[in-house]
Order: sequence, then C-alpha cells, then structure tokens
Amino acid sequence: MSEFDPPRALVRDAVVRALREDLGALGDLTGVLVPDAAHLEGDIVARADGVLAGRACAAEVFVEVDRAIEVEWLARDGMTLIPNTTLARLHGPARSVLIAERTVLNFLSHLSGVATLTRRFVRAAEGRAQIRDTRKTTPGLRALEKAAVRAGGGVNHRASLSDGILVKDNHLALLAVSDAVKAARSLWPGRPVEVECDALATVEEAVAAGAELVLLDNMTPDDVRVVVERVGGRAGIEVSGGVTLETVADYAAAGVDFISVGAITHSAPILDIALDVT
Amino acid sequence: MSEFDPPRALVRDAVVRALREDLGALGDLTGVLVPDAAHLEGDIVARADGVLAGRACAAEVFVEVDRAIEVEWLARDGMTLIPNTTLARLHGPARSVLIAERTVLNFLSHLSGVATLTRRFVRAAEGRAQIRDTRKTTPGLRALEKAAVRAGGGVNHRASLSDGILVKDNHLALLAVSDAVKAARSLWPGRPVEVECDALATVEEAVAAGAELVLLDNMTPDDVRVVVERVGGRAGIEVSGGVTLETVADYAAAGVDFISVGAITHSAPILDIALDVT
Amino acid sequence: MSEFDPPRALVRDAVVRALREDLGALGDLTGVLVPDAAHLEGDIVARADGVLAGRACAAEVFVEVDRAIEVEWLARDGMTLIPNTTLARLHGPARSVLIAERTVLNFLSHLSGVATLTRRFVRAAEGRAQIRDTRKTTPGLRALEKAAVRAGGGVNHRASLSDGILVKDNHLALLAVSDAVKAARSLWPGRPVEVECDALATVEEAVAAGAELVLLDNMTPDDVRVVVERVGGRAGIEVSGGVTLETVADYAAAGVDFISVGAITHSAPILDIALDVT
Amino acid sequence: MSEFDPPRALVRDAVVRALREDLGALGDLTGVLVPDAAHLEGDIVARADGVLAGRACAAEVFVEVDRAIEVEWLARDGMTLIPNTTLARLHGPARSVLIAERTVLNFLSHLSGVATLTRRFVRAAEGRAQIRDTRKTTPGLRALEKAAVRAGGGVNHRASLSDGILVKDNHLALLAVSDAVKAARSLWPGRPVEVECDALATVEEAVAAGAELVLLDNMTPDDVRVVVERVGGRAGIEVSGGVTLETVADYAAAGVDFISVGAITHSAPILDIALDVT
Amino acid sequence: MSEFDPPRALVRDAVVRALREDLGALGDLTGVLVPDAAHLEGDIVARADGVLAGRACAAEVFVEVDRAIEVEWLARDGMTLIPNTTLARLHGPARSVLIAERTVLNFLSHLSGVATLTRRFVRAAEGRAQIRDTRKTTPGLRALEKAAVRAGGGVNHRASLSDGILVKDNHLALLAVSDAVKAARSLWPGRPVEVECDALATVEEAVAAGAELVLLDNMTPDDVRVVVERVGGRAGIEVSGGVTLETVADYAAAGVDFISVGAITHSAPILDIALDVT
Amino acid sequence: MSEFDPPRALVRDAVVRALREDLGALGDLTGVLVPDAAHLEGDIVARADGVLAGRACAAEVFVEVDRAIEVEWLARDGMTLIPNTTLARLHGPARSVLIAERTVLNFLSHLSGVATLTRRFVRAAEGRAQIRDTRKTTPGLRALEKAAVRAGGGVNHRASLSDGILVKDNHLALLAVSDAVKAARSLWPGRPVEVECDALATVEEAVAAGAELVLLDNMTPDDVRVVVERVGGRAGIEVSGGVTLETVADYAAAGVDFISVGAITHSAPILDIALDVT
Repeated sequence: MSEFDPPRALVRDAVVRALREDLGALGDLTGVLVPDAAHLEGDIVARADGVLAGRACAAEVFVEVDRAIEVEWLARDGMTLIPNTTLARLHGPARSVLIAERTVLNFLSHLSGVATLTRRFVRAAEGRAQIRDTRKTTPGLRALEKAAVRAGGGVNHRASLSDGILVKDNHLALLAVSDAVKAARSLWPGRPVEVECDALATVEEAVAAGAELVLLDNMTPDDVRVVVERVGGRAGIEVSGGVTLETVADYAAAGVDFISVGAITHSAPILDIALDVT
Repeated sequence: MSEFDPPRALVRDAVVRALREDLGALGDLTGVLVPDAAHLEGDIVARADGVLAGRACAAEVFVEVDRAIEVEWLARDGMTLIPNTTLARLHGPARSVLIAERTVLNFLSHLSGVATLTRRFVRAAEGRAQIRDTRKTTPGLRALEKAAVRAGGGVNHRASLSDGILVKDNHLALLAVSDAVKAARSLWPGRPVEVECDALATVEEAVAAGAELVLLDNMTPDDVRVVVERVGGRAGIEVSGGVTLETVADYAAAGVDFISVGAITHSAPILDIALDVT
Repeated sequence: MSEFDPPRALVRDAVVRALREDLGALGDLTGVLVPDAAHLEGDIVARADGVLAGRACAAEVFVEVDRAIEVEWLARDGMTLIPNTTLARLHGPARSVLIAERTVLNFLSHLSGVATLTRRFVRAAEGRAQIRDTRKTTPGLRALEKAAVRAGGGVNHRASLSDGILVKDNHLALLAVSDAVKAARSLWPGRPVEVECDALATVEEAVAAGAELVLLDNMTPDDVRVVVERVGGRAGIEVSGGVTLETVADYAAAGVDFISVGAITHSAPILDIALDVT
Repeated sequence: MSEFDPPRALVRDAVVRALREDLGALGDLTGVLVPDAAHLEGDIVARADGVLAGRACAAEVFVEVDRAIEVEWLARDGMTLIPNTTLARLHGPARSVLIAERTVLNFLSHLSGVATLTRRFVRAAEGRAQIRDTRKTTPGLRALEKAAVRAGGGVNHRASLSDGILVKDNHLALLAVSDAVKAARSLWPGRPVEVECDALATVEEAVAAGAELVLLDNMTPDDVRVVVERVGGRAGIEVSGGVTLETVADYAAAGVDFISVGAITHSAPILDIALDVT
Repeated sequence: MSEFDPPRALVRDAVVRALREDLGALGDLTGVLVPDAAHLEGDIVARADGVLAGRACAAEVFVEVDRAIEVEWLARDGMTLIPNTTLARLHGPARSVLIAERTVLNFLSHLSGVATLTRRFVRAAEGRAQIRDTRKTTPGLRALEKAAVRAGGGVNHRASLSDGILVKDNHLALLAVSDAVKAARSLWPGRPVEVECDALATVEEAVAAGAELVLLDNMTPDDVRVVVERVGGRAGIEVSGGVTLETVADYAAAGVDFISVGAITHSAPILDIALDVT
Repeated sequence: MSEFDPPRALVRDAVVRALREDLGALGDLTGVLVPDAAHLEGDIVARADGVLAGRACAAEVFVEVDRAIEVEWLARDGMTLIPNTTLARLHGPARSVLIAERTVLNFLSHLSGVATLTRRFVRAAEGRAQIRDTRKTTPGLRALEKAAVRAGGGVNHRASLSDGILVKDNHLALLAVSDAVKAARSLWPGRPVEVECDALATVEEAVAAGAELVLLDNMTPDDVRVVVERVGGRAGIEVSGGVTLETVADYAAAGVDFISVGAITHSAPILDIALDVT
C-alpha cells in the first residue's frame, strides 16, 4: 500500500461499477467473435509526458475480469512518464484482455491526467507554496482523484465536509467570524479552523479569533502579498480562485502556504495511455 | 423525462454516492455552526458560455438532502447559456443548502462541460457529419456523460461492449475481417457491424463482407475523402482518432457520417457554474 | 400490508433491480420518440383464468418510474381472475407508462402464474392436505414467490436453511436419525424437527426419536397410506417428490398433512396479463 | 469466457443474492448437525433430456460457499443432455456441499430449462428462421436467461429498452410510423429500427419509411406469408405472439427471419437436475 | 464452518462496512508514515476472563485488508479465555496490520463480550433452563450477535419476525388468544406458537388453545413456579423481562424451559482484547 | 438537521439494514394475525434516567415501514430524560406499528445508552476537560454512535483513520517521534499531529517536534499532572486508557484538555425505552 493508493474498498467499488457499465447485460458482443483459446500480449504505454496515477485501479480491473491475465508493472504511481514509457506488460486470454482494456485505460488516463496537471502546478510553484486540491472533484471519484493529486505532488485539502472546518462567505452571511470560530472550537475542539476572507478587515478578524488558516479567494498576487505581511505568521494563508499555470508562480512568490486549484481535479484532460498489442 | 435525461435509477445512484463521499461520517462540520433556523436564498448561475446538462442530477441532490429546499428551474438540458444566465432559484434551510451546494455544482459543471464541448464540435462540423461519443468516459459516469453528449447535440455510439459490434485492430489480429462479420451475423443477427480499417484494402474487405459501418482511425481528411469515394454509399463511414476542433470541419467536409471524439467525455473542462446567495 | 405481501424492502429491491436491467444506460430509446407531453390511459387486464399475485411489486414499479402515473387497483392478491378481468386502471405521462409497462407485467404474470398453479394444486387436494412450497424457487425471487404461494392458498415451508430443520437423506448418510434429532434438540431447542424417510423403518426411528414431522419422498399413495396408519398421529406427515395435478388428490386422500410441490415455484407458466391502452 | 456466459459481475450478483436468501441469519440449521469434519462426494446429474445452461452460476456458488469444494465439470453450456448425464463431480466438506446444493441446482435447472425449451423451438423451426427471446424475462434474471437462450441455440433480441428501437402499437397510437422512424434516425442514428405492424398497410408504411425490420404480432402463418412476399426482402421480418411448438414450423416456413417467443424465458419448466451423493 | 459461525455473506458484509467506515476517503493517514517495507509481528491477546466469539469476522478483516498478513489462530469461538490467552499470532506488512488492527479488535471484543455475558447467565442457570437471546440486538449485527450467543452456550430465539410466531400483549389487545392461535395454525401451519401471558388465566387460555410455548414476562420466580405447576408439561415455558445474573438461578429453579435475556446482546460490555506487537 | 444528527444517507442505510434483518423473507408472521384494519396508538417512553439520542433513526424507521404511521416527537436528541418521559406519541396501522416497534426501540435504546454514559463522564469531569470518543465503536455504527456522543455532551475524536494523525506506540516501534512528525507535516500539511507518549522523555520529544497534541495512555493522574506542568501549554494533552467514572474527575483535575473513553461507545448499556400501547 503506497501513500498514493486510495483505500482498497473504494478502488474495488469504482472498478466493479466501471466494468458493470461497460459490459451491459450481454457482455462483449465483439470479443466472443475471436476464438476462445486465443491469447493476447500487449504493453500499456504512455503516449505523452506526464505522471502515473491509478495503477491500483488498473490492477484491480484485471483481477476482476480474469485472474488468468498476467501483468508485470514497470511503473508506479507518482513516476514521471515520457512518450513511449511502458507502464506494464501483460498477456492472457484474448477475450479477457479485450474486456479489460478500455476500463483499464479509462482509469489510468483520467487519474494520470489529474496527477499530470497537479505536477505542472507543483513545478510552477517552485516549492514556495504547496498545491492543494478542493472538493471540486468528479462525482463518485473523489478518493481516487485525491490520491492522484498526491501522486502528482500535491497535498489534500479536506476530503469531505466532515473532514475539516472551512468558514466561507455563505456562512459569514449568517454569523460573524468570531462567533463562527468560537462555535467551531466548542463543537469540534482540536480541529483547525480555516476562514475565507475577502478583505483585510476580515483577515484581521479571523486571525484575532484564532483561526489557524485564512483563505483568500480571488485576490490578486499583490493583494495577497499585503495580507501575508500583515498576518506575519500568526496564521497560515491559502489562496484559491482561478489560479492558473500562468499565475501560480506569482501567488507562490507572494508567500502563501497553500494554493488550492479546482482545475487539477475538475478540468484535467486525460493523459494519453494506450494498450499496444505485441 | 426528456431525451437528455439518464435513467432515474442511475441518477439516484450517482447522487447518493456523491453525497456520501462529501458528507463523510460526521456530516458538515461547518454547516452546523450556522443557526439551525437560518434560511438561504440563492441563484444557480452560469459564469461562462456553454450548454446546460445534468439538471436531473442537480434536482435529485436537493431532494436527497432535504425536501424542504425549494428549487425553481429556469433552464433545461440542452439550452444555450451565456454568462450570468440564471439556471435556478432556490431557497431553503441554510444547513441543507450548504450541504447540497458543492455536489449540485459538481454535477452541473462537469456534465455541462461535456455538453458544451460537444456543442463546439457539433457546430464546427457544420451539420455535415454527426459527432459521436466513445467508451472513453469517466469511470462510473458513462450514462450521465452520454446523456450530456445528447444535450450538446451529439449522438451516442454504443453505451457498452454489450451494445454494438465494433471489430477493431486487436480483433483483426486474431481473425479475418470476413470471418468476423460472418461470426457476428451468426451470433448477433439483426445488429449492425462496424469494422475499424486502417487501409483501403481493409475497407474493401469490410464492405464486401457486408459491414454496415467502417471506422477510419487516425487517417488524414484527404485519405478519408478517398475512402468515402471508393465506398460510394455501400456502407456508412465514421472517423475517429485525435480529431480536434481545428480539424473536425475538414473531416466533416470529407463526407463521413460520424466523427467520434473521445475528448468530449474524457477531457472536457467544466463549465463554470456557481451558487450566488442572494 | 396483507398477508400476501412480501416485506417492503424486498419488493423495492426486486423492483429496482428489474427496472435497472430493463433501462440499461441510455434509457428507453423508443419511448423518447413520442411527444414529451403525451399521456396514456390503459387497463391492466387478465387474459386467462387464474389468481392474482404481485400487486405490491407492480405498484412499486409505477412509483419508482414516475409518481405522476396514477393507478387505481380493482383487484387484490389472492383474487380469482377470469379472462378480461381488469386488475387496474392507470393513466399518466406516456413515456413513463411505456417504461413501466413491461416490468409491471413481468412481475404480475410471473407471480400470478405461481399463485395460479398453487391454487390448482390446492383445489385438487380438496382440502384434505395443505399444499406447501419448497426451496426450489427462482434464484433471487424466493420471498416474492413464497408470498405468491400464499396468495394461491398454499402455505410456506421453510424460507431458508436458517428457517427450519429438515434432516434429509444426505444428512442421514453421515449421522443416524436419532443422533440427528438429538443434536437438533440441543442446538436449536424449541424448533420442530422434520426427517425425510424412505422406508417404514426410518419413519419408526424418526417418530421414536421425537421428530415432529416426517417427509416421505417419492413414495406411492399406497405406501404413504401405510405410513400414515402406522404413525397414527404421533407425528405430522408430508409427502414430496413429483406430485402432479393428477396424483395430488390420491396423496391427499392418503391422509397426509402436507404435500410439498416444487413445481408451483420452479415451473409455473406465467398467467397472461396485458396492458390495454384505452 | 464462452459466448454462453453472462458477464461475471452479474453472475456474482445473482449468486450472492441467491445464497443470501437461502442462508438467512442463522445459516444452515440442519447442516451443522453433521460432523464438522465430514466430507461428501457427489455427482450433479441430469434426469431428463435437455440442454445445459448456467454452469458459470453453479461454479460461482461453490466458490462463494467454500473454495475447499472441488468440482470437475464434464459438460458445458449448450451441450445436449440425456437422462443420467453426469454434469460434474464434486467433493468437499459436507456442511459446505449441503449449503451449496440447493442453490446450485436452482440455477442449473432453471437456466437449463430455458435452454431446453429454446432448443425445442429451434429444432421445430428447422433452421428456416431464428428463434429470438423477448423482454418477457423473470425479473432480475434477464442477463442469465438471455445467455441460456444462446446456449439453447436461440438469438438475443434487445436486452433492454436502451438496446434497440422497437416501435409498437402503443407508440403508434401517439405518432405516425414515418414520424417514428424519422425521429429514431435523428435521435439514435446508426441503430436499426423495428416497427410492429398489424396490417399490410402499416407494413408498407414502415418499409417505405426505411425500417430495417417489421414485427408481425399475432398474425396467422398465411397472413405472414403474404407480408413476406409483399416486402420482398426490403426489410427483415419477425413474428411474435403466441407462437407454440406446434405452430412454429409454419411460421418458419412462411419465410420470416425471426420468431420471437416469450415462453422460452417466462414459462420454461425446469430441467430436472439433481445431486447424487456417491 | 462451525455452528458458531454466522453465514459467510453476512460476515463479509459486516467486515467490508466496518473497514469502509474506518478508512474514510484518504485511508490511514498515520500508517503511511511508517516505511512501506516495514513488517510487524504481533499477538492478539485476551486481557480478561471470557469466551471467544467473532473469529470468522476477524479472519475476514485480515483477508480484506491484505492477504499478505499471515495469521495463525490458537483459539476458536466458544473457547474459555483467561487473561493473557493468546488468540492468534500474526505477521505481515506493517501498514496493513495497522489498518486491520482496530477493526479486528472491535469485532472480537464486542462479540466476545456477548459470548462472555451469555456464558455467565448459562453458568448461573446451572443447566436447569436454557438461556435464549431476543430481538433486542444491536442494529445491523443480529446474525453476528446470535452466533456469539451460541458460542457462549446460549440458544437462539427467533432471528426475525419471519422466524417464529410470538403473540405478545400488543397483539392480544387486538384479538383473543384462541383466535390468535387459530389464525397462526391456519396461516403458518407446522410452526410452533408462543404466547406471552401476564396472568394465570391467559396461560390457561393459551395452553387450551394449543400454544406450544408460553412466555411469562416480568413475573417473580414464585409466580413462575405456580404457572409451571399448573401447566404441568402441557406447554413449554419461557420467562423474560429484567432477569439478571442475581435472579436467573431462581427462575431456572422454578422449572422453566427457557430464560430469554435481552441484556446479553444489547448491554454486554466488551471483552478486553488487544494486539501486542512483539 | 441538528448537530446531533448523523448524515442522512448513513441513517437510511442503518435503518434499511436493521429492518431487513428483522423482517426476514416472510415478514412479520405474528403481525398478520391481527386484523388488517386495526389501528394502534402508543407512546414511546423512557423508563430510566438518561439522555436521548437516535431520534433521526427512529423517525426514519417509521417512514421506511409505513408513511401512514403518524409520529409526534416530544423530545429531541441531547435532552435529559427521567423515568416516564414520553418521547413520542404515535398512531397508525397496527401491523405497521408492530413491525416498526422493535427496530425503533433498538436504535433509541442503544444510541441513548451511548449518550447517557457519555453524559455521566461529562458530568464527572466537571467541565475541566472534554470527554472524547475513540475508534472503539460497534462495527457498522460509528457515525451513529459518534453523533450520540455529541448528544451526550462529548466531543468527537477522529471518525476514521483518514480523519486525523495519531502516532501510537506501534508506529513508534518503526520510526522515531521526530521523523513521524516530520513525515506527517510533509504528507498531510495543515493537519494537527497527535503523538501517544508513555514517558516524559517521549512527551518532550513530541513537543519539541511540534506535535499539537500528546496522548498519555494508561498513566496515573499524578503522572499526568507532572506532564501537564512540564508541557506548560506548548501542546494540548489528552489522556486515555481505562478511565472510569470513578477516576475521570482526577484526570480532569490534572489539567488535561481531553479524556478519551472507549467505554462510552463500546460498553454502554442500553437506556430502557419502551412502546406503551394506549
């Protein structure tokens, strides 16, 4: 179990669901046209630069489809890939390999896409700030995508509403910052409190109330720099909101701790990965 | 039930799964900080140009979270959106709205992203060829993404391996084109047969064998044009493989029936949709 | 809740499963061809003589598909049907009715088929013995079929291996009758013990050991009569094994308490029930 | 994986469900009366003429119950059976074999019953027309029954509403034949359209509109013959509606392509299969 | 499979559910801090006097988490434990063992707690009456707790409402004892009928009606003794209602057959069991 | 939604599971003996001093069983109960009420038992330290029990391994305290780190490494006091390990922040709650 693996039960659920939707009621109409005894050998190959993620899912697909498929993995999650990197060699009954193929590639290419885009943001931040994910994930795939973010070098923000306190503008429309922090201390002691702030005054209020982290949403790097100086280490600072590969370095340079980027999970294009029959 | 809606049971499954992953074991730690009696009103608003999809999912989220949330929809799937289009007006118990918000937006923005990219391809093809989806979908969301493709004006290729015969290069490594078509006629009579072809000779073989559709993978528009002429209407023609918004018009102009594009499901960035509290 | 209804959760499970398998991933391709606003009215009608069962399942199908379908039931489980009996009147959105139709009819016709065949055996037994079902049920439908047996006037034998002690020949190959009864008394006190007997000697042994019921498998009515006399009321007597509508009266006349018939669940032809659009 | 096997995930679901309903909460009350160390050997044997189906389900039951049960299969799906054909030899822990027995037999006898009745229709049609199944399947068992139909030599009609376009009388009450075909072409291009016809005029309309297949419901063989001649190969022809083993040859001789028979799935009696302990 | 094991499918369900709730979305945050290659050896050890139950659950946890964990069991369900009894020795990948630890212990300690308290009641009854469980079990764990009761030497009352007829005061508010027994005979023949009685008159009525068992709720041992004498073996007798370890001997001495005790399932403190790393 | 409610989906899952296990395959054998039309009225009443929890579960049971049961709640989670407090008034179809009764009471009495024992510890701590739960919960009921702890006035420690970093002795056997804290900072930045310490030296090491919280396991109150002084506020302090109602005040007086008590979830006896038919 690597730190880039999601919990096994979640991997299994996702794989069974994916296979179910790809096999329908009659199974593979085309696959049964090839002889039952036929075997296939092939390589799973990256066709572009990127970072691998989703290996545990791919491996589970093969197990679910047919244990007679033998797979030798040559790469692990988090590894940097260049075009033509062979990720795995496999051979097995042709009908089984043909069933597994698309589902394996769908997992690998989507999750590696997430890891790859994450890595780009991480590199652009040049180590000055950490790249965090958000709850803006593809419905049903959060645990898998959060693991892919780790594989890409990012770090995980809260995994669910149950996994951290983040007071946002919509909450602050209904209660004051200090009351929110106080209520959080009382109901959920021992958990850090993060407060979204849209102005210096709110930042001051949050820090004064003892928030561990302030979240600056949709501020310019220059505005962020001012906040960083004013806070002076009394709380951590995170920025979010439309940060791009072009702007991430400026935010990182402004001295924040975290930059959270929804796009790494909700808008990452796939990494092109294919099965080459040999 | 519109033709852009996925089957209800699949909507419900996806929604329950998504809410479960977003609520964890303790529920919304932050939401319970606001007064139990507080109410919220808000608008779901598009922030960019695009096409709506996923309304049935969003509606189901609200129902699952709390029937006391009242939602009035002003837009339907397939509708063209411009920035600031209000999709829905809602009000309800604040804690419930805060729980529903992110999951609603994740469904709407992902599926509308799929519909939006599909519409772009459809427009670029200028009605000369139809845009089809593929099995390259996000694991677990195929039915929802295929419905979003329809909302975008695309048409659905097979939904699963059980839902159509497509003889690809990997099959042809194991049996001849004519044998494949013959076997398909015998095992699955009444279903059309599509054969992937990488050369004119294979096209001829497939058409001679009676295939209803040939799939040209990774050919140039010029090569495709030659095939179209040679086939002369004896079979339908589909192209696939790296077709982009830049090249789709050329392929459409080459006279094909279908252009299938994996990117509309596997690499569509989200459409920016938000909840504005009013 | 009538005594002919299976537990609600099991009804719901069966219905959701059935709808899921009938809707696939894309939903009803044909139904969406009719106008979204179209309505349908129709009657669910029996086309043959029989007994109704499965109404709770049918009702649940309509609810699951669309609460806008309104259904007025004119018959209840256990009721005798003659050709053209109207079971229910319904109207609702055409697309929804078309989706529900086949699944509703599959439940009603299968379960009414079970009830109908049961009733035939019950009538043939002329009240001298009770007709019992077995564990020879259609996989996944046991609770529903057992309820249909009750609707047909039969009674339920054990619903599962956990629901009664029945020592059969395969057990007796491994331990003596008296040891079996003794072990059953010790492990599962308070539960009646039934012992399958293929000879008078075994019957004697079982009765002597205190079995509450003996099961005579594949005996002739004459042999059964001899056993009945010998037992003289010291234990109940059940027969099973290839009892048909032709022979059931003879067995009943032989003085047994129960006649169990696998065919009522595993080989009942459907009762012809249709939806007539009006 | 043979062409007679349903998708593995569906086999596993059906098996787990069936075992669950047969084991209840306390497990096998009677089985635990035999010594824990006892072993059983036995043969699974056909008691009547028929065709085997459901082997994958039976095999999965043994795996689910106890991997220590060893099973050697001597027959495969689609094989013709005569009375006393041994299908499999097995041995294993007695308690485990006793648990598996009934569920194994329920699957084999039901699905082989379907295959057997299918084969009878296939034989009666003498190769002049193909026997197809319908959506009139036992709720929850469609994929398994459709596989059994293939094992019996029949072919599969659509597996679900999502898996083919069939315009029936209820649709035609709401829109014209030509409109239906046109709408189908537009919404679901590339998929064949079948139209149910109750009169020659409708047949003409359907063929003229370009339907690939016409479905003649409840016509006499003579009427069918007239239609076949009139259509003259412009479309395929299927008949359905009360076709029996007695009448199927006449329909086949009338020149149709397909004869669909609901009874092969909804009213097939079981094939008698038993476990003989040796 | 021992008589103390719950059905396998239920064990697996409970284990998967428990692991899922303990792993959340990100998995074991702390476990991944230790080196991936690290191994752990340990003993599962009882820290107090008691009776083992739940071994099948614990074994399944290890299998679900990682088949590379090797476990040698030294104790079986039903065995008497004294402080420092080693139940199992195990070794395996450290991260996997750390994941399994808590869930294994939660099952063992809860279920052994049930078995231990059951055994105390069994001992206190000195063999004069049998200790039975009730339906007052922890929601979702009934089958497991009923198996633990058997491990402790108790016997199982009905596992569900479907598993036995027990006419209680709430029923008798709505129909007379004799009517209840008569209805039960008619609807559910062959199943014993138990009637709850709060007065001698009701006992007489129940026995006269042919009830197999009378349940005396909340009577004193002296009152119970009177009933036992009056019934004189015409029916079995069970007592329930607040029987404690202090009073159970008196009830047993009063001559009843069964003493049912809700506390053995609903209020058993855990048995202290720990994993000692060696 | 109150802060004492678990997430709705988890409530529903637990309720459906519980009803399923209580209804078996045949449903309520005894309930159907009473007339179908009979109605019942009743009060849910506490029979002992305690704290209410589990109302959301109970309410959901009634909804799942029959929406025709009307329930008026007079108490809410967290409320103090004395003997004979009426929690709810209900009336509805007798058969439905009889089905719901036991499951409703099992949820209420178990979860109120947890809340009640929690409240006792909270009171004994006299506000000087907070009472926290642990991961020692009943398998499958963690979210519900953690909500009950909140209802009792306790606070929640981590809900799963994914929900907080707690370095325990087993981890420290494999890596040094400072390395553990450093690794945690790197992999899971922004999350507090807690370190279990068995000696003052380890406490020093943990505090020096920057741990936010130290966990003192199985220390005496006097030892704890020494640690508290030495730490001097540089980190929070939690104690655990065999703290009882007798000793909790001493620990609280020693100046710790949290006292975590496994017994409040794993060994809480039920609170006696009954349904009185009126």
